[in-house]
Amino acid sequence: MNERKLSLLMDFYELTMANGYFHDGKHEQIAVFDLFFRSIPDQGGYAIFAGLEQVVDYMENLSFSESELDFLRSKEIFSEGFLDYLRHFKFTCDVYAMKEGTPIFPHEPIMIVKGSILQCQLIETMILLTINHQSLIATKAARIVYAAQGRSVLEFGARRAHGYDASIFGARAAYISGAIGSSNTYVDYMYQIPAIGTMAHSYVQSFDSEYEAFKAYANTYPKNTVLLVDTYNTLKQGVPNAIKIHKEVLEPKGYRLKGIRLDSGDLTYLTKEARKMLDQNGLSDVKITVSNSLDEYLIKELIHQGAQIDAFGVGERLVTARSEAVFGGVFKLSAIEVEGKLVDKIKISENVQKTTTPGFKQVYRFYDESGMAEADVITLHDEVIDPSKPYVLFDPNYPWKTKTIENFKAVALLHPIFQGGKRIYQLPTLKEIRAYAKIEHLTLWPEVQRLENPHEYYVDLSQALYDLKQELIRKYKK
Amino acid sequence: MNERKLSLLMDFYELTMANGYFHDGKHEQIAVFDLFFRSIPDQGGYAIFAGLEQVVDYMENLSFSESELDFLRSKEIFSEGFLDYLRHFKFTCDVYAMKEGTPIFPHEPIMIVKGSILQCQLIETMILLTINHQSLIATKAARIVYAAQGRSVLEFGARRAHGYDASIFGARAAYISGAIGSSNTYVDYMYQIPAIGTMAHSYVQSFDSEYEAFKAYANTYPKNTVLLVDTYNTLKQGVPNAIKIHKEVLEPKGYRLKGIRLDSGDLTYLTKEARKMLDQNGLSDVKITVSNSLDEYLIKELIHQGAQIDAFGVGERLVTARSEAVFGGVFKLSAIEVEGKLVDKIKISENVQKTTTPGFKQVYRFYDESGMAEADVITLHDEVIDPSKPYVLFDPNYPWKTKTIENFKAVALLHPIFQGGKRIYQLPTLKEIRAYAKIEHLTLWPEVQRLENPHEYYVDLSQALYDLKQELIRKYKK
Repeated sequence: MNERKLSLLMDFYELTMANGYFHDGKHEQIAVFDLFFRSIPDQGGYAIFAGLEQVVDYMENLSFSESELDFLRSKEIFSEGFLDYLRHFKFTCDVYAMKEGTPIFPHEPIMIVKGSILQCQLIETMILLTINHQSLIATKAARIVYAAQGRSVLEFGARRAHGYDASIFGARAAYISGAIGSSNTYVDYMYQIPAIGTMAHSYVQSFDSEYEAFKAYANTYPKNTVLLVDTYNTLKQGVPNAIKIHKEVLEPKGYRLKGIRLDSGDLTYLTKEARKMLDQNGLSDVKITVSNSLDEYLIKELIHQGAQIDAFGVGERLVTARSEAVFGGVFKLSAIEVEGKLVDKIKISENVQKTTTPGFKQVYRFYDESGMAEADVITLHDEVIDPSKPYVLFDPNYPWKTKTIENFKAVALLHPIFQGGKRIYQLPTLKEIRAYAKIEHLTLWPEVQRLENPHEYYVDLSQALYDLKQELIRKYKK
Repeated sequence: MNERKLSLLMDFYELTMANGYFHDGKHEQIAVFDLFFRSIPDQGGYAIFAGLEQVVDYMENLSFSESELDFLRSKEIFSEGFLDYLRHFKFTCDVYAMKEGTPIFPHEPIMIVKGSILQCQLIETMILLTINHQSLIATKAARIVYAAQGRSVLEFGARRAHGYDASIFGARAAYISGAIGSSNTYVDYMYQIPAIGTMAHSYVQSFDSEYEAFKAYANTYPKNTVLLVDTYNTLKQGVPNAIKIHKEVLEPKGYRLKGIRLDSGDLTYLTKEARKMLDQNGLSDVKITVSNSLDEYLIKELIHQGAQIDAFGVGERLVTARSEAVFGGVFKLSAIEVEGKLVDKIKISENVQKTTTPGFKQVYRFYDESGMAEADVITLHDEVIDPSKPYVLFDPNYPWKTKTIENFKAVALLHPIFQGGKRIYQLPTLKEIRAYAKIEHLTLWPEVQRLENPHEYYVDLSQALYDLKQELIRKYKK
C-alpha cells in the first residue's frame, strides 16, 4: 500500500494500438488530441478544471521497469522492438492546458496534446482519469460553496470516498473550489489543506456521561473546544452541557468555547434554538457547524429556512459527487501529420453534439469592460484576435445568431505546459490555484453561476475554425 | 505518484480523540466497534462484502514516521507522550470479519474490531473508506453480472474512475462479483485480472481508411483480431470491412476473426443486423462486444429486445456506481470494558432504524436443507446454535412474526482475522474470493437477487440479543 508504480494504469488497448503503430512504423507520426467534455454535471452553468498538477507529474515520470516489460512480454503479442521503445520511453509531446481553477464549458478543448501518436494514445487513460475526477469534485464543490453564500464549507467525505486517491485528490479539488479544509489529515500533511475535526459520538459514549466527555475534551483542548452536542439530546442535554463546560471549565481558565457541532435531527430548528441558547449565555461568538448528508440543495434550503449555521461539513455527497458521479471528459483525435503537414480530422456523428471540431486549436475568453466573462471562442491555434476592432461572435449551431462586441479583452486560456516533452510551465502552488479559481469565479455572471436553470455560457467558433469544420463535414458527406 | 505512505489518511478527529484518551489515561480501555450498513444501494436485495485484503494490509503495516510525527507536533495540540505512543505504534486489536465475496445485508456487523479504544478509533476512516468503496462496486457489479444472464461483463471504467485507486480496486471488486476482466492493464500486472482491449476510434481514424486500419491491426494481431466497427458506419462499412478482413487477411493465413465491438448507435438493431451479416458469411463464432454508458438496466433492456451480444463492456456507470455512488457503512461503538467487564453500549435514535444493536456479536447464516440461505441471525458473540433442534426466527421489529425452522445448517459468518494484533487468517487469493462469491451467490433465492422489488432477506436477532437490546432501551428511557 505504501508503494506503487502506476505506469501500467492504462487501458490495454492503448498498448495494443501503440504496438500496432510501432509495428507499422508510424509511431512517430505527429497527432493532435483534444481533451474536452460534452455536458456539465447537475445541469450546472459551468465546471471547474482541476488535476493538471497530477497529470504533469505523470507525464514527467512515466517510465517502464523490467518487471513491467516482462509482464507485457508474457502476453505474447508485443514485439521486442516495442518493448525496447518502452524501456527507453521518454515523453516528447507538446502539451497545452488551461490553468487549474479555470471555469470550463462544454465542447472547448481544456487540454491539447500534440506529439507522436503512440505517446498521445498511451497517456490517454491517465489524463482522462485524473482530469475527470478532480474536475468532477471541483465542480461539485463550487456548487456547494456557492450555495453556502460565504459560510464555511468543510470537506468531510474520506470514509465514503472511492478509494484513497478519491479522498486525497477529492479534498484537493474541493479546496481549489473554496472549501476551507478537510477531515483528512493526510491532505494537510501533503498539501497543507487545513485538517479539521474534534470528536465522534463514540467519544462521548465512551464516558459515563456527556458532561464527563465534554469536560475531558475541554481539559485536553482548552484553546479549541468544539463539542458534538447531539449524542443524546441536542437541546435538552448537548447544548446545556456545552454552555456549562464553557462556564465551569473554560472560562475559569481564561478560555472560551469555540463551537458546537450537530450531526443529526432537524438542523434548521435545532440550530435556531441552539443559537438562542448560546446567545442568551453570552456565547454569540460560538460557531455552529452542521453535518449529515449535506449537499448544495440541502444547504440552500437550510439557509432559506433561516438555520443558524456558520459552517457546513459536507461528506459523501461532495466526495462522490453523488448527484452525478461521472465527469465525461473525452480525448479525441483532431489532426494528424502527413508528409510534414497537419491534416485536420473530424469525427462525424448522427448526434450533432457529438461531431468533433477538427484542427489544432486555441481557446480565447472574452471579458467585457467590467471584467465579466462574455463568451469563449475556439480558434485555430495561431489565430490572432485584435482587441482594437469589434469582434463578431456567432453561435456555431445557429450561425445567423450573432453579437458584435467591442472594448473587450481576449485572453488565451490554453497555456503551453510541455514543449517537446520538456516542462516549460511553472506549476502554481495550491494556494495560488485556489486564489485564481476564486478570482475567475467572480468573472462569471450570476446567471451562469446559479444552480437552477443557469444561463448557457457562449462557446463559439471563430469564423476560420467554423469554415474549416463545415468544409470537412461537406467533404465527408461526399 | 509512485510512492506514498497513507498512515495519516485518517479523519483528524480520530487523532484528537486518540490524544484525548491518552491524556486521560483511558487509551488502553477495551472497546468493541461494529462495521455495518443501513441500506442496500439501488434498493437491491443484497450487497457484496469486499475490501478486506486491503484493510488487513493497512492494519498490519500502520506506522508513523518521524516526518509524520513532526507534522502532528506542529499542530501544537498533541502531547509528546501521545506522539511517542504513535512512534511505537503496534496494532494489537482483535478483528473479526466476513469473507470477501459474502452477500451481506443491512444492520448486521460485517466486521468487528475489539481492542484499545484509541486504536479502534484511529483506524475507523481507513476501514470504512476501503470497505465502503469496494463493497459499493462489488455490489453494483453483481447487479450488472446478474442482468447479463451469463454473457460476459468487462470492466471498462478506468477513465471515469474517481482517481487511481478507484480504478484499481474498482476493477478488483468487479472481478470478485463476476466481471471477467478489465481494461486497466495495471490490475492484470498486480492482481492477474485479465486485461482486455483492442483499439479506439482514433486508431481507425489515423489510417487513410477503415479497411487500411483493420488490415494493419489484423496483420499485427492475427490470432486475436477484434475490430471496432462503428467509426464511420457500422452496417454499411464497419461490419463489411471486418468480414472482408477475415476473408482477405486472416483466413488465407489460417486465422479467424475473433470479434467485433460497437460503441455507439442503437445497439439492439445494430447487433441483430451485424449478427446476421456475420452468420451469413460463416462467422457465427465471431463474438460481438458492445459498450457505451451501459448499466444493469440497459443491459436488461438490450437482452429483452433480443440484441445479439456476447460481451458487455461496462464503464463509468460501474466504476462510479453512478446510480448510487455511496455505500453507507458506519463504524459504531457497541461495548466498552469497565473494570475488566464488557459493558454493552447502545445509541438510541428517534429513527428506529438508526438505533444500534449493542454488545459483542456474531452473525449466523441459516441455510435450509437444499443449501439456500434462509436468514441471518445476529447473536451474542459466544452463543451456540444447536442445529439438531428447531430454531425460532423472529423479526426484531415485529417480534410476534415468527418462523420455526428445522434441518438447517447455521454457519458463523464473522471469522477471526487478527488476535491481539497478530493476523491468524490466511488471506485467500483473488481467484478463490471470486469462486467463493459465485458459490455464495447461488445460495440466494432468485427473489432476493432480482433487480426490481427484491424480497427483503431476513436479518434477525437471537432471543438473547433481542432481550439485551430491549433492556438497554428500557434503561435508557428511564
